Amino acid sequence: MNITAAHLAEKVQGVVEGDGAVMLTGVAGIRDAEPGDLTFLANRKYAPLVAETKAGAIIAGDDLEKGAAKCAVIRVKNPDKAFTVAALLLGLPAVTREPGVHPSAVIAPGVQLGTGVCIGPHCVLEPGVAIGENTVICAGVYIGHGSSVGRDGLIYPCVVIRERSKIGRRVIVHSGTVIGSDGFGYYREGEKYKKIPQMGIVEIGDDVEIGANAAIDRARFGKTVIEDGVKIDNLVQIAHNVRVGANTVMAAQAGISGSTVIGRNVQFGGQAGVAGHLNIEDNVVVGARGGVTKDIEKNTYVMGFPAMPHEKAKRLHAHTMRLPELRDRVTALEKRLAALENKEKRG
Amino acid sequence: MNITAAHLAEKVQGVVEGDGAVMLTGVAGIRDAEPGDLTFLANRKYAPLVAETKAGAIIAGDDLEKGAAKCAVIRVKNPDKAFTVAALLLGLPAVTREPGVHPSAVIAPGVQLGTGVCIGPHCVLEPGVAIGENTVICAGVYIGHGSSVGRDGLIYPCVVIRERSKIGRRVIVHSGTVIGSDGFGYYREGEKYKKIPQMGIVEIGDDVEIGANAAIDRARFGKTVIEDGVKIDNLVQIAHNVRVGANTVMAAQAGISGSTVIGRNVQFGGQAGVAGHLNIEDNVVVGARGGVTKDIEKNTYVMGFPAMPHEKAKRLHAHTMRLPELRDRVTALEKRLAALENKEKRG
Amino acid sequence: MNITAAHLAEKVQGVVEGDGAVMLTGVAGIRDAEPGDLTFLANRKYAPLVAETKAGAIIAGDDLEKGAAKCAVIRVKNPDKAFTVAALLLGLPAVTREPGVHPSAVIAPGVQLGTGVCIGPHCVLEPGVAIGENTVICAGVYIGHGSSVGRDGLIYPCVVIRERSKIGRRVIVHSGTVIGSDGFGYYREGEKYKKIPQMGIVEIGDDVEIGANAAIDRARFGKTVIEDGVKIDNLVQIAHNVRVGANTVMAAQAGISGSTVIGRNVQFGGQAGVAGHLNIEDNVVVGARGGVTKDIEKNTYVMGFPAMPHEKAKRLHAHTMRLPELRDRVTALEKRLAALENKEKRG
Repeated sequence: MNITAAHLAEKVQGVVEGDGAVMLTGVAGIRDAEPGDLTFLANRKYAPLVAETKAGAIIAGDDLEKGAAKCAVIRVKNPDKAFTVAALLLGLPAVTREPGVHPSAVIAPGVQLGTGVCIGPHCVLEPGVAIGENTVICAGVYIGHGSSVGRDGLIYPCVVIRERSKIGRRVIVHSGTVIGSDGFGYYREGEKYKKIPQMGIVEIGDDVEIGANAAIDRARFGKTVIEDGVKIDNLVQIAHNVRVGANTVMAAQAGISGSTVIGRNVQFGGQAGVAGHLNIEDNVVVGARGGVTKDIEKNTYVMGFPAMPHEKAKRLHAHTMRLPELRDRVTALEKRLAALENKEKRG
Repeated sequence: MNITAAHLAEKVQGVVEGDGAVMLTGVAGIRDAEPGDLTFLANRKYAPLVAETKAGAIIAGDDLEKGAAKCAVIRVKNPDKAFTVAALLLGLPAVTREPGVHPSAVIAPGVQLGTGVCIGPHCVLEPGVAIGENTVICAGVYIGHGSSVGRDGLIYPCVVIRERSKIGRRVIVHSGTVIGSDGFGYYREGEKYKKIPQMGIVEIGDDVEIGANAAIDRARFGKTVIEDGVKIDNLVQIAHNVRVGANTVMAAQAGISGSTVIGRNVQFGGQAGVAGHLNIEDNVVVGARGGVTKDIEKNTYVMGFPAMPHEKAKRLHAHTMRLPELRDRVTALEKRLAALENKEKRG
Repeated sequence: MNITAAHLAEKVQGVVEGDGAVMLTGVAGIRDAEPGDLTFLANRKYAPLVAETKAGAIIAGDDLEKGAAKCAVIRVKNPDKAFTVAALLLGLPAVTREPGVHPSAVIAPGVQLGTGVCIGPHCVLEPGVAIGENTVICAGVYIGHGSSVGRDGLIYPCVVIRERSKIGRRVIVHSGTVIGSDGFGYYREGEKYKKIPQMGIVEIGDDVEIGANAAIDRARFGKTVIEDGVKIDNLVQIAHNVRVGANTVMAAQAGISGSTVIGRNVQFGGQAGVAGHLNIEDNVVVGARGGVTKDIEKNTYVMGFPAMPHEKAKRLHAHTMRLPELRDRVTALEKRLAALENKEKRG
């Protein structure tokens, strides 16, 4: 699609500064952009690149100074949102998949498929599976007995959804992810571990997205719950009986131990971890690598391991960094005090 | 199945306190239980919920006080074991798979399948594979040249078992796990890394369970060994030539570097890590996130990074938490000493 | 293959010490070797085993003392390289796969397959895919629309390569790995997260090897780049728009956050992590578990979290280990000073 900067500005409810007639034919990052490209300022760190970009136009918010760019500026309230709209107009079209069931898919008798559903090659849908309208199940996906996937979903190739899982509407699951694997539960008899049956399920709300090669275990009984709007990155571990509250986000390689309850709007940085049987309340932020070992009250930003409020963690870190100096101060004190004691003795 | 509390108590060798005639029709967690459900006390943390549960009966050990529950109590020695027996009676039956080979599976000539074996859709069994009696190979599993899986095993969908792997009896492998991938080995020529062939195998004992999306590398030569009864959680990494001793357990996202030898009955917490070429002796416990950088003697409980005996780690942590106070004490000393020195000078 | 130690020495440009006539028929680790085996000294830690090995011959460099082994020694400049050559002669032959397309594979019309290509059972190659000469695509691999894999590659079973990915020559990808999954990008509208389309691609250079169950996300736009010769271990996370410079190696479970640029010849230890939008320059080494939170200059060896130059980290660690002693020194000073002050007062 070709569109002028001025025309695009209308579509994203923005205002053009500079040459509104410049023709845009693609999108690109600020460093790679060519003259026909639209670009945007993703992060203040890249502001110095604005003056140098070869892009035809840039989408920016209030924080870009007037005149900072040589190209046209499309000024908007929410640059991420505006760029998303623009990218869907100007970018390469996404891959589309036609409705229908590939002949190599193995669909059990009685499986329910909504209208517009696409089932890719080599999929396996076991008895009792139900797939909602317009949902795309890509190649090689396995969906176990009695599981359901809501409408308008997108399940990428080679996902495994074990039996009795309930997945909401508009859910995206990336390749390699396993939903409903057994929780890690054993009891001991002498030296040996005996398996505790994992008879519960996984229930996933609407508008959830789960990255690649993540693992979400089914409950021992009852359910492991991922509420509406949760976003989970690659290689994340969610253990059995965990509940993740609505609109919580978890960056890559984070892990939540069994039976922990996480509130709404919580944020986990990459490689963060949480011990089992804890309560993490609403709006908590756990910094990257944070290791949570006890309950966290709402609206708290924690970091470190064991995780503590981030001001405290930063203060302790600063103290630790000055340990050599502290040691030197103590050594100096010892010398001065010894000198004084000697005087006193002689005196 | 419907069963009275009294009848169930017989089956788990327990004693009923309260209404033995109450009819049980299902199992549930202590919070979610309804009047017909059996529940149990999984963790002392949930003891306050015992008085409030709507369950018809609760399985408990000696540590639950008499009269703490309004519902019937089935008193047993090992609640986990008793509940496991009860849950198999009362819970939803597990998915079963009929023996036979799905027509879409690709089975090389000469593959040996024991009686009662089930091979799911889209599986691939390469030449020389042998599968023991009653083992279930779910959909989409790949088993490479010359590998064997012992009897009564359960290999979940989309597992990859590379060539020449030897897997014991009653082994469970969860979806997405890769067994026998090449170890990470290179030598350098100038700036470039050249691959060292990984010609060894993986050997897995009896009664092992491996979680979802784990990776167990084959040996450079010889074998990577997982001994009998080992339990490995999701997303765990086992590098080449590692040996994991019998009945060792490893929680999610733990990682063991190459050639490390781990004893029997060792426990690794989540996200723990071990450097290469180390010896971790029997009965060691590595706390969650523990990072082991040197050999650990038997019966030691270590934590932290670098891992150290946990009492030492706790003491150091306490000292670190009091660093601001220590700094203040040093500052106070400096002032008092300066005052004294001044007096002395003037005196 | 049977070969004498003397004959083998010629093939690896080494010199025999001891019995050059000993016949070698296999390879094994120094502990497991039997009389007909060739072994080698992989790590100085195992030097005490040299005197005891039952091997027929051992490959070693200059650092093994003369006379340390009872068996023949094949002395070479680069033992890793020599052993690699020898192991390919003496070890079990690798599994080979015949060229051709398995009838169960689903190959879109117009897909380009070079001569000698092998496409395994149950693979799916979408429209526009191109596979270079002699490349082996094992069972159950998915390759999305418009993606290409260069010549002489080896893609192990159950790999997913999403649309428009570009993969170079002689690339090895292990099972379960996902290339081209969506980056983790959202913008907020009120409490909800809205998906930012991930329209870029993944580009992988020549001679790259990627381990099992790793995840490499496609770019928001533009590309995520893995340059020539990079070696990535199992369960590694590479976020969107990351660039990894040539001949960089990343050990298992490491993770790189979005838009970070990594130089050439960088080394990441296991479980290391890097925050987003950073520059890690050439020849940097990040120790195991290192957590990088800011740019790192070239040729720096960092460790710890937050990562710092390793000498500094070691010094701080030593200071931390001596905290109890420092506290005792301060307590002693307080007592001595109080005594002096009392004298002064009384004096």
